[in-house]
Amino acid sequence: MEIEVLEGVFDANEIIARENRRILDSKNVFMVNLMSGPGAGKTSLVLRTLEALSGKLRCAVIEGDVTGKVDSERIADAGVIAIQINTGGSCHLEAKQVNTALGRLDLESIDLLIVENVGNLVCPAEFRIGEDLKAMILSVAEGDDKPLKYPLMFSESDVLIINKVDLLPFTDFDIGRLKETVKKMNPRIEIFEVSCKTGDGIGEWSSWLKKKVSG
Amino acid sequence: MEIEVLEGVFDANEIIARENRRILDSKNVFMVNLMSGPGAGKTSLVLRTLEALSGKLRCAVIEGDVTGKVDSERIADAGVIAIQINTGGSCHLEAKQVNTALGRLDLESIDLLIVENVGNLVCPAEFRIGEDLKAMILSVAEGDDKPLKYPLMFSESDVLIINKVDLLPFTDFDIGRLKETVKKMNPRIEIFEVSCKTGDGIGEWSSWLKKKVSG
Repeated sequence: MEIEVLEGVFDANEIIARENRRILDSKNVFMVNLMSGPGAGKTSLVLRTLEALSGKLRCAVIEGDVTGKVDSERIADAGVIAIQINTGGSCHLEAKQVNTALGRLDLESIDLLIVENVGNLVCPAEFRIGEDLKAMILSVAEGDDKPLKYPLMFSESDVLIINKVDLLPFTDFDIGRLKETVKKMNPRIEIFEVSCKTGDGIGEWSSWLKKKVSG
Repeated sequence: MEIEVLEGVFDANEIIARENRRILDSKNVFMVNLMSGPGAGKTSLVLRTLEALSGKLRCAVIEGDVTGKVDSERIADAGVIAIQINTGGSCHLEAKQVNTALGRLDLESIDLLIVENVGNLVCPAEFRIGEDLKAMILSVAEGDDKPLKYPLMFSESDVLIINKVDLLPFTDFDIGRLKETVKKMNPRIEIFEVSCKTGDGIGEWSSWLKKKVSG
């Protein structure tokens, strides 16, 4: 028999993340942890994804923010159940906060649960919440040097969604260089190019996600 | 006689921030704490500001990043002294890290010291480093709803620099609404509109900063 010794904040988080995982598995719910810096387009991507998957998957959303409920109101306006978590100053979601939110959802009636993390490219990558998939967004406007400066986020994510590709002509963002850098750090990462403004690329991303959830 | 009781991580940081303040005052160095989310344009603004103040003020830079030295190399390439701090996973600079960097600079030969904090709109606002001025950048591409979601950063900053105004025609960013929201939260804040790409607005910001340093 192996005894695991768990210590400190990361290990306490890990225990609850596993409990979340167990709960979600028992209800057959697929959970995405969606992360990015501020203003990369998390809420816009959630709205576009919900629209694309409407009638195909039963979705719900957990919104993580330091404060306020701007985002959960945007989701609720779209007719989808949204639970708002306010971290009260903390710059990332922890598994225990997600655990509380899970208790407020009717998990039997959900196929896909999207968790929008706090806008931050650093700490959310360090805290598992019991997700099936870690997805991150990088906006074209943020620059193609970001993987070198926030490597953990890029190496921990299963999916990178490059958003705001409509702005490519007006920036010096080199999408080829970005992909090369990221693939070196994380060869298994899936990369999608989208514009939440125009809708470009949303179909491809949503179809891929639907397969993941159904598979 | 008053005895201050200082406890915990914030108070330990505050003690060292005051010590940094004392050191800088003794050498007549003005220190700016420059903060923003990832990719808002901190390093680009530093480079534009150094260029504008060249021959007018003696400048140096402290670069804060989770890892790597991309930014300090960009500054050094411009012929300005730059010290790189790697936080090793932490999402903000603390006063003790800045204190170490101060020990490596010839403060007698510096008028203006710009500290580029880690790209993060949450935690850097909570940790004083002994600065004279807190300046933050918001990029037009991030959206005008950010003050509602990251209020501490907007209420703690002395200056807001709205960057990437060249992208205004291609976004739905409402600069009037943004200013109104921010001014309600922080009536004393100074607001500048710039494009580090085209150079628009850099003169106004740099002249204002020069007056602050010289005054």
